[in-house]
Amino acid sequence: MKNDATEEQVNAVIKEIERMGFRGVPMPGALRTAICIIGNKGSVDATQLLAMEGVKEAIPVTKSYKLVSRETHLESSLITIGDVTIGAGEPVIMAGPCAVESEEQALTIASIVKKYGAKVFRGGAFKPRTSPYAFQGLGEKGLKILDKVRRETGLLIVTEATDSENLVPVEKYADIIQIGARNMQNYSLLRLTGQTKKPVLLKRGFAATIDEWLMAAEYIMSEGNSRVILCERGIRTFSDNTRNTLDLSAIPSIKAVSHLPIIVDPSHAAGKRDFVIPLSRGAIAVGADGLLVEVHHDPAHALSDGMQSLYPQQFEQLMQEISRLKQYL
Amino acid sequence: MKNDATEEQVNAVIKEIERMGFRGVPMPGALRTAICIIGNKGSVDATQLLAMEGVKEAIPVTKSYKLVSRETHLESSLITIGDVTIGAGEPVIMAGPCAVESEEQALTIASIVKKYGAKVFRGGAFKPRTSPYAFQGLGEKGLKILDKVRRETGLLIVTEATDSENLVPVEKYADIIQIGARNMQNYSLLRLTGQTKKPVLLKRGFAATIDEWLMAAEYIMSEGNSRVILCERGIRTFSDNTRNTLDLSAIPSIKAVSHLPIIVDPSHAAGKRDFVIPLSRGAIAVGADGLLVEVHHDPAHALSDGMQSLYPQQFEQLMQEISRLKQYL
Amino acid sequence: MKNDATEEQVNAVIKEIERMGFRGVPMPGALRTAICIIGNKGSVDATQLLAMEGVKEAIPVTKSYKLVSRETHLESSLITIGDVTIGAGEPVIMAGPCAVESEEQALTIASIVKKYGAKVFRGGAFKPRTSPYAFQGLGEKGLKILDKVRRETGLLIVTEATDSENLVPVEKYADIIQIGARNMQNYSLLRLTGQTKKPVLLKRGFAATIDEWLMAAEYIMSEGNSRVILCERGIRTFSDNTRNTLDLSAIPSIKAVSHLPIIVDPSHAAGKRDFVIPLSRGAIAVGADGLLVEVHHDPAHALSDGMQSLYPQQFEQLMQEISRLKQYL
Amino acid sequence: MKNDATEEQVNAVIKEIERMGFRGVPMPGALRTAICIIGNKGSVDATQLLAMEGVKEAIPVTKSYKLVSRETHLESSLITIGDVTIGAGEPVIMAGPCAVESEEQALTIASIVKKYGAKVFRGGAFKPRTSPYAFQGLGEKGLKILDKVRRETGLLIVTEATDSENLVPVEKYADIIQIGARNMQNYSLLRLTGQTKKPVLLKRGFAATIDEWLMAAEYIMSEGNSRVILCERGIRTFSDNTRNTLDLSAIPSIKAVSHLPIIVDPSHAAGKRDFVIPLSRGAIAVGADGLLVEVHHDPAHALSDGMQSLYPQQFEQLMQEISRLKQYL
Repeated sequence: MKNDATEEQVNAVIKEIERMGFRGVPMPGALRTAICIIGNKGSVDATQLLAMEGVKEAIPVTKSYKLVSRETHLESSLITIGDVTIGAGEPVIMAGPCAVESEEQALTIASIVKKYGAKVFRGGAFKPRTSPYAFQGLGEKGLKILDKVRRETGLLIVTEATDSENLVPVEKYADIIQIGARNMQNYSLLRLTGQTKKPVLLKRGFAATIDEWLMAAEYIMSEGNSRVILCERGIRTFSDNTRNTLDLSAIPSIKAVSHLPIIVDPSHAAGKRDFVIPLSRGAIAVGADGLLVEVHHDPAHALSDGMQSLYPQQFEQLMQEISRLKQYL
Repeated sequence: MKNDATEEQVNAVIKEIERMGFRGVPMPGALRTAICIIGNKGSVDATQLLAMEGVKEAIPVTKSYKLVSRETHLESSLITIGDVTIGAGEPVIMAGPCAVESEEQALTIASIVKKYGAKVFRGGAFKPRTSPYAFQGLGEKGLKILDKVRRETGLLIVTEATDSENLVPVEKYADIIQIGARNMQNYSLLRLTGQTKKPVLLKRGFAATIDEWLMAAEYIMSEGNSRVILCERGIRTFSDNTRNTLDLSAIPSIKAVSHLPIIVDPSHAAGKRDFVIPLSRGAIAVGADGLLVEVHHDPAHALSDGMQSLYPQQFEQLMQEISRLKQYL
Repeated sequence: MKNDATEEQVNAVIKEIERMGFRGVPMPGALRTAICIIGNKGSVDATQLLAMEGVKEAIPVTKSYKLVSRETHLESSLITIGDVTIGAGEPVIMAGPCAVESEEQALTIASIVKKYGAKVFRGGAFKPRTSPYAFQGLGEKGLKILDKVRRETGLLIVTEATDSENLVPVEKYADIIQIGARNMQNYSLLRLTGQTKKPVLLKRGFAATIDEWLMAAEYIMSEGNSRVILCERGIRTFSDNTRNTLDLSAIPSIKAVSHLPIIVDPSHAAGKRDFVIPLSRGAIAVGADGLLVEVHHDPAHALSDGMQSLYPQQFEQLMQEISRLKQYL
Repeated sequence: MKNDATEEQVNAVIKEIERMGFRGVPMPGALRTAICIIGNKGSVDATQLLAMEGVKEAIPVTKSYKLVSRETHLESSLITIGDVTIGAGEPVIMAGPCAVESEEQALTIASIVKKYGAKVFRGGAFKPRTSPYAFQGLGEKGLKILDKVRRETGLLIVTEATDSENLVPVEKYADIIQIGARNMQNYSLLRLTGQTKKPVLLKRGFAATIDEWLMAAEYIMSEGNSRVILCERGIRTFSDNTRNTLDLSAIPSIKAVSHLPIIVDPSHAAGKRDFVIPLSRGAIAVGADGLLVEVHHDPAHALSDGMQSLYPQQFEQLMQEISRLKQYL
């Protein structure tokens, strides 16, 4: 639409699109509103639309994703939650344990990561685990602990939802809903998450291409939730020096075609704590909008994969290095 | 337990296991009943159990899967549905379109595949699709068409459930519930599927190791549903001559450690119809218990990936080749 | 060229091609001779050529390989060495140890594999090894042992050349020169092998696409040696149930675009002897022209990877199964 | 050996090792000399050696590589060529075209990269190409052009050798001999390169594990050439957003186990020029000792893959960013 298009004109175009058998989704930008046509197969004859008042141009979107595309949303998206903004240049650090184990554990780690500058506390209450016999998280009790962490520290909370059932309390207690790598193509969960009011941290599936990942984000956005943060966490390859191969080229790849912010999880990719600091530096230098890092006050006794959790002093070092590096950027 | 152990003895052992803080799951075999201990971390001191009446031996299961393991269930499992048995030596052919498109389409294809010897009709009513804007299947209407196919042709029905919501009607209308590759680590769906009364066709995730796949089957079995059929459908590799690389070594790999039957889907792996017949011969010769094949009466106009659907005459040829090959086995 | 084109006409066309700045390579077929134009970048204006006597048509070859392509050589190539023909329908079995260890070892194994029906004896004299400190083979002494094996048993000999230096004695002593997976893109070695008079067994690089593999064969053929046998031996993937993932779809992939025969090495792909028999059945059923199998009279004491060598009785079983299977294909 | 061990003592130990049937390779360090035992299978009884004068301790090296290992050479190796030192903290930038095309082209690009701070000029004279019909480089003529570049600009020269034949002139004209990814397991070439007097840039094979790569370096070092520089250039994965997936975790992986320096080639990994600058920043931030970058004064007309060559102004920007970044590391 033109810069000065009125709301009535926008609505009229949306109605016309619906009359044509598709859906029209308005996307207000800083300067003007774009309207995405959804539900078409192949190209749409825009003659009728171009004749309407307030319409500036019709841009065919070649890729099958639209809402996530930079073609329809030129400026990079900023996602603001409380006083934290993701995508604004300042890397946002999300840190905490793999799993919430107890109130004491969570509060101890939260006070450490807050002290060194993290803005968001991570910790799983519902853990997707390869084995049905492994510790699956504290569940809703874990969420209440996270709630307490927020109240006591002021940190924002990111935690994972794994199904339609636990999505409800996760939405209630979390500031950011995490969708894990294994659920990146759980389309029902993506749709439901798109219907929530909370920002979503969408991890890349460990065998997902960039296009498939963006299509997963498109599922969320097509339901009306445009606050999606992507998270690169390593892909599965033949290479065995790390648990997964961290693909830092995902950052320029995403930035080239999408307006969404992207952060990096070096902990799950590396699987070895000593690699987390160098890979974090690399992620920030390449252009990541933040980090998701595993930290534990006592990694040796951590439930679920203490091998990769940073010790508190390592996290302190990480934050100092990132802080220096930020001046360069 | 010993061959002549009584039900009382079995129950007493289960109670004792529960007293130890674990769960005991009885697994009746042809000759004797095994009892799996679930919920333990590390090894269990079996002294107490070995002293009980009817107990023959305590076998530590090294792998983290138990119920799917051949260690606890030496004989290969046979899965019988109506007059079809999977795993009994006779390859079972499941065939049909990618998606149910209409009653006419489904009945047309069903009569073709039945004519040439298929025992099970495949067809998706709920389609997990990479793009939110792609055809997602006819939904419950599609299930009712499948129900009609069963009534009119006598073929069994296999169709995919993608979430907790559509699992309910899929269980109602299908003879076999399919869990797709993208949902192989959707643990909530696996658990719910484990609570149904229908056999489950569990496809291998396209980046899943054999162990992860068996752990997914373990999720289903640990909820009480022991009728799991595995389905190899190709893995994601660098190789671009096929859509996915069909890993026929999965067959001896599974047979070596698990008692579950395994079938092969050459259509989705190849992505090219001309490769389906040779790969099908290969699958049967390696030892697969059946095939899942895409067939369409008019591939050029198929919704969802007609490129790989066999033409009716190709399916006829496939069935003739498999029929000859079976005499060898 | 037309069916009745004379040698003079063929030569005239080749001269004209040279005048245009390219090379013309005649490829005599059963019915007519094709002439490949080599050295052009992009398409060639064939007007001049089409006007010449004996010329039937000019076929642009879209793929960058030409000599290996079925487009220029419709019939599948048969490669005859002594009384063995590869590609004629009867699977040719090549068997023997990984490495020649001693005359006694080689003769013992040769008499076993001959007894059960192998036509070609395999055994490495020059071994490409990951570590510089591992056993690198007996060298020329090993070749002389292989020569004795041929004289005493009548088996043909296939053995690997790894560089320009050992290619000379390998050509002298072997009936088939093997180029290993690690040297598939050693273009200097490929060119030199193309200048020899012996057939070449070209293994697929463990991370090579089908196109790259065919281009490697093109290197050999472009030097004048048209007797190339391809050998699928597994590709490197994330999957860890076998050493490499045997890609049996390579068989129809190759057959679709190339006239060259293709055999399969299940031993190196599997890395586990118990998988060799089922994978061999699969390879033959898919359409392989032969097998390359590791056999040792005493695998437990084999130099270089006895884990995958078949025991003599397993090889006997393999040969019986292949023999029965052939009747049903 | 002890810090104060004499040369006689070192020689005596080497002789004793030879008497035991192995080879002893002295490795002088800043403080003391280590002697590697080569040629042993399994562990060596060191009782005799420990009794000799000047011997401090016997360290069993668990990995099968020794000379490349940090266990035997604690300090990181510095490789000095002329007034350039690799591994000393200051990233060394090697830049130039994919292939030497003409004297004018080479000198033009050399003056550009020198102007912005590169220390080494790259350019291929012998190009390993997938197709036998592609431009294979200018050969020895190209080497003479490189020689002129050195004389006119003072830049060091790195260029690739692809076989035993062209290794001779490459050693003569180059300052650093490059071994390409496709030849990483060309063991004969590695050995010959190990017998030269020039430093070697050893690229990681595109499907090589870290261990295999270090073993390739071990081949070179075991022949006496200890000046090996490793170069990460991307690995082959399913991911299609870049030509190869740049594995920056290779840097801490190598640094953890080896004393050798490691640089990064972002151009070949990305295959897209716009990703080269961010990935270069990432490589330096993770800890790479330098970069190998493709630059062309006229990428649109470059022979061999201009798509990834930087424009001169992009190279200028790259050098400025690296220069600023260095201050914050």
